[in-house]
Amino acid sequence: MTENINFDKYKNIKRHMGRELIDLNPIQRGGIIPVESKKAIYEYCDGYSVCDYCGGRLDKVETPPICEFLNDMSKFLNMDISRPTHGARESKFIVMHSICNEGDYVVLDENAHYTSYVAMERAKLNYAEVKNEGYPTYRINPEGYKEVIDKLEDEGKNIGLILLTHVDGDYGNLTDAKKVGKIAKDRGYPFLLNCAYSVGRMPVKGKKLNADFLACSGHKSMAASGPIGILSIRDEFADKVLRTSKTHPVKEIEMLGCTSRGAPIVSLMASFPHIVERVNHWDEEIKKTRFVVHELEEIGFNQIGIKPKEHDLIKFETPVLDEIAQKDKRRGYFFYDELKKRGIGGIRRGTTKEIKMSVYGLTWEQVEYVVDSIKEIVENC
Amino acid sequence: MTENINFDKYKNIKRHMGRELIDLNPIQRGGIIPVESKKAIYEYCDGYSVCDYCGGRLDKVETPPICEFLNDMSKFLNMDISRPTHGARESKFIVMHSICNEGDYVVLDENAHYTSYVAMERAKLNYAEVKNEGYPTYRINPEGYKEVIDKLEDEGKNIGLILLTHVDGDYGNLTDAKKVGKIAKDRGYPFLLNCAYSVGRMPVKGKKLNADFLACSGHKSMAASGPIGILSIRDEFADKVLRTSKTHPVKEIEMLGCTSRGAPIVSLMASFPHIVERVNHWDEEIKKTRFVVHELEEIGFNQIGIKPKEHDLIKFETPVLDEIAQKDKRRGYFFYDELKKRGIGGIRRGTTKEIKMSVYGLTWEQVEYVVDSIKEIVENC
Ligand SMILES: Cc1ncc(COP(=O)(O)O)c(C=O)c1O
Ligand SMILES: Cc1ncc(COP(=O)(O)O)c(C=O)c1O
Repeated sequence: MTENINFDKYKNIKRHMGRELIDLNPIQRGGIIPVESKKAIYEYCDGYSVCDYCGGRLDKVETPPICEFLNDMSKFLNMDISRPTHGARESKFIVMHSICNEGDYVVLDENAHYTSYVAMERAKLNYAEVKNEGYPTYRINPEGYKEVIDKLEDEGKNIGLILLTHVDGDYGNLTDAKKVGKIAKDRGYPFLLNCAYSVGRMPVKGKKLNADFLACSGHKSMAASGPIGILSIRDEFADKVLRTSKTHPVKEIEMLGCTSRGAPIVSLMASFPHIVERVNHWDEEIKKTRFVVHELEEIGFNQIGIKPKEHDLIKFETPVLDEIAQKDKRRGYFFYDELKKRGIGGIRRGTTKEIKMSVYGLTWEQVEYVVDSIKEIVENC
Repeated sequence: MTENINFDKYKNIKRHMGRELIDLNPIQRGGIIPVESKKAIYEYCDGYSVCDYCGGRLDKVETPPICEFLNDMSKFLNMDISRPTHGARESKFIVMHSICNEGDYVVLDENAHYTSYVAMERAKLNYAEVKNEGYPTYRINPEGYKEVIDKLEDEGKNIGLILLTHVDGDYGNLTDAKKVGKIAKDRGYPFLLNCAYSVGRMPVKGKKLNADFLACSGHKSMAASGPIGILSIRDEFADKVLRTSKTHPVKEIEMLGCTSRGAPIVSLMASFPHIVERVNHWDEEIKKTRFVVHELEEIGFNQIGIKPKEHDLIKFETPVLDEIAQKDKRRGYFFYDELKKRGIGGIRRGTTKEIKMSVYGLTWEQVEYVVDSIKEIVENC
C-alpha cells in the first residue's frame, strides 16, 4: 500500500514567503509571530505537551498558564469569560449551535465572511442579510438591521442571533458595532461580533460595543500560529454556551472537552503582551494605510470600500494594471512577477482588475519601498 | 482594563517534561515529534502560512503538498478519502453530525473515550453500550455488539452508527475491529473505528477491518504537534460527510471550509515518513511492553486489562506502592518524587493505587533504566 508513495516531498518542507519576501497578503500580515512566540512553540511542539499538568480541562491548566491567560484575555477584550477555540469560524459555530434552535434565523451583514454562512449551514439555521450600499463603498448601515429584524418579526420568524462582521475581509470596512449591538439589545436578541479582522490589530472593548460574544482569530490577527481562536462571552450566556456533559460533568460539550490542545495556544499566550501593546499603535497603522491609498490612487488605482480607510485591508480597482496586462507577454502575471523581482509577495497571481493588500506591521521604510516599487512597475511596464 | 495584568508570566514560557525527563505518560509517548518535524513547524509557524498558495480549500493546497499528503495518507490507512481535522474527537463529531439524525442511537463499547460521549451529546444522539467483561481484563467481546443491536432493533430504535474504540485509553486493550466491522456490515450500519491510540503506532488497514470511517489523532499517536487529526472515509460516504455549502459550493460544511490551517498539519506531513516506518516495528514495542509487565509484576505490580499486552499502554494495580505511601511522610507523592529524582516523569502525581504508563519509543536501554529505577524505589522506600 505504501510502496508507491514518494516520501521525498515530505523531507525538508520549506516556506519561502515571509522570510524572503515582504508579504502584502492581508490574511497573513496580522499573523506574523514574534520571536518569543517561536521559542514557546519550540518548547511545546510535542503532541499534547500542554496537557502535562492537566486536571481534566484545557482552560484550567496552570502550567503553562492557560487559565490565567484566559482571564487576562477577558480583561483585554472587556468581556466576562474566554475559551480557546480553533479559530473565529469555530467560535461562531459554537455560539450558533448552542444558543439557536434548528431553523432559527440569523440576521447578518451582506459582507459576512463565508465561514459565517458555512457555520450557519452546519448548525442548520436560516439567515437574512442586511444588504450593503453597493459600489463603491459597500457600506453596511447599522439601521439596516432594524428593517431586517422588523420584516422577520412581521413574518413570524424566529430570530436566534444577530451577527455583525466587525471588519469584513472583502473591503476592510469597519462597521459601527455599538449601534448594531444597541439594536440587538433593544430587540432582545443576542449579538455576536465577528472580530477575526479586528481583535489583535485594533482596540476592541466587547461590552462597550454591546457584544454578547466575540469571535476572534489568533492566526489572522493576534500574531499566533494557526489554528487558534478565542471565544469571549458574557456571563449570562455561560450556562448555555459552556454547558457540561451529563456523563462527564467536567467536560464542556461544545468544546468536545478540550479544543486547542497543542502549540497554537502557547503561541497565542507568548504573543499576548505583543498584541496588547500593538493595538495602541493602530493610529499609526491607519496612517500607513492611508498613505498607500493616497500614493497609489495617484497612479490610477482606485480604492473601493469606505473612505478614508479605517482598517489596513485595502481593496483597489486597478484598471491601469489591466491595461498593461493586455500588452505584456506575461499577461496578468506580469504584476506578480515584477513584484517578486523586487522581493514583494502576497498579491494573488494573475489578478490585475482588482487587488487586495495590506501593509500592516511594516516599517515606514518598507511601506515606502512597496509604494515606490508599485509605482516603478506601473511606469516601466 | 489591561493595567492590572502581569505580563511576566508570558515571557519565556518553558516546558521541562520531555527534554529533561523520560516521560512515561501514555498520552505523550506517541506524540513526540522527530527533528524534521520541528524544522517544518519553524518554517510554517506564522499564522495562516499554509494558505500562501490556497485556491479555496486546505485539502487541495499543493504548496506545501497537503493534497498529495492526504492521498498518501489514504493509501497508508487503506481507505479512500482523507481530511485533516483538529483531532480524533473532531473527526468523530463530524461523522456523527453528518451521517446520523438527531436522536439516533450509537452502539459503542463501554471502554469508549470520554470524547466519544461528548461528541454524541453535542450531536444530540443517544447511545447504547456494549459492556466490557469487568475486572481484571475489561475485555470487549465483539459478539456483544450483536446483542445490543438486536435489543435496539427489537425496541424499534433507530441505529445511526456503530463505534468501536480500537485501543482504549484506560486499559490499552486492543479489540478485534474486523469482527465488529463484520457485524456492522451484516446488519447494514456504518462503522466508525476510533484509532486515536492505534493509527501511527501500529499497522492499521481500514478496509481490511471493515471500517467505514477512521478517526485518528496526530498529537496522540502520529508524532505530530497538536491539535491535529485525520478523518479517513470510504467513497460511498463522501457525499454525506463531505457535502459542500449551498452558498459557497467549494467549501465543505463539516470542515467549516478549512480545518487545520496552520503548523500542525505541516508537522503531521513532515512526520509522515517517520510514522510509516515506525509502525513496522510494532512487534518490538510490544516486546518492550511485555518486558516491563513481566519485570514489574515480579515486585508486586499487577497488570490489568487483556494479557498478554497487545498495546503499549499499561495499567497496573500497585498495592505495593500504596503500602509504602501509608508509611512514607511524603504520602502518595513519594513515587512521583523518587521517579523525578531519577529523571523519570509522566506518572500522575499522588496516585499509588493504580498507575498508567508506556515505554513506547524508548530505547531498550531506557526501558531497562525505567524498570530498574522503579524496582529500586520499591525496594528502598
Ligand atoms: C471577516 C473574517 N471572518 C472570519 C475569518 C475566518 O477566521 P478563522 O480562520 O479564524 O476561522 C476570516 C478569515 O479570513 C475573516 O476575514
Ligand atoms: C481512545 C481515545 N480516543 C480519543 C482520544 C482523543 O484524541 P484527540 O485529542 O485527538 O481528540 C483519546 C485521547 O486521549 C483516546 O485515548
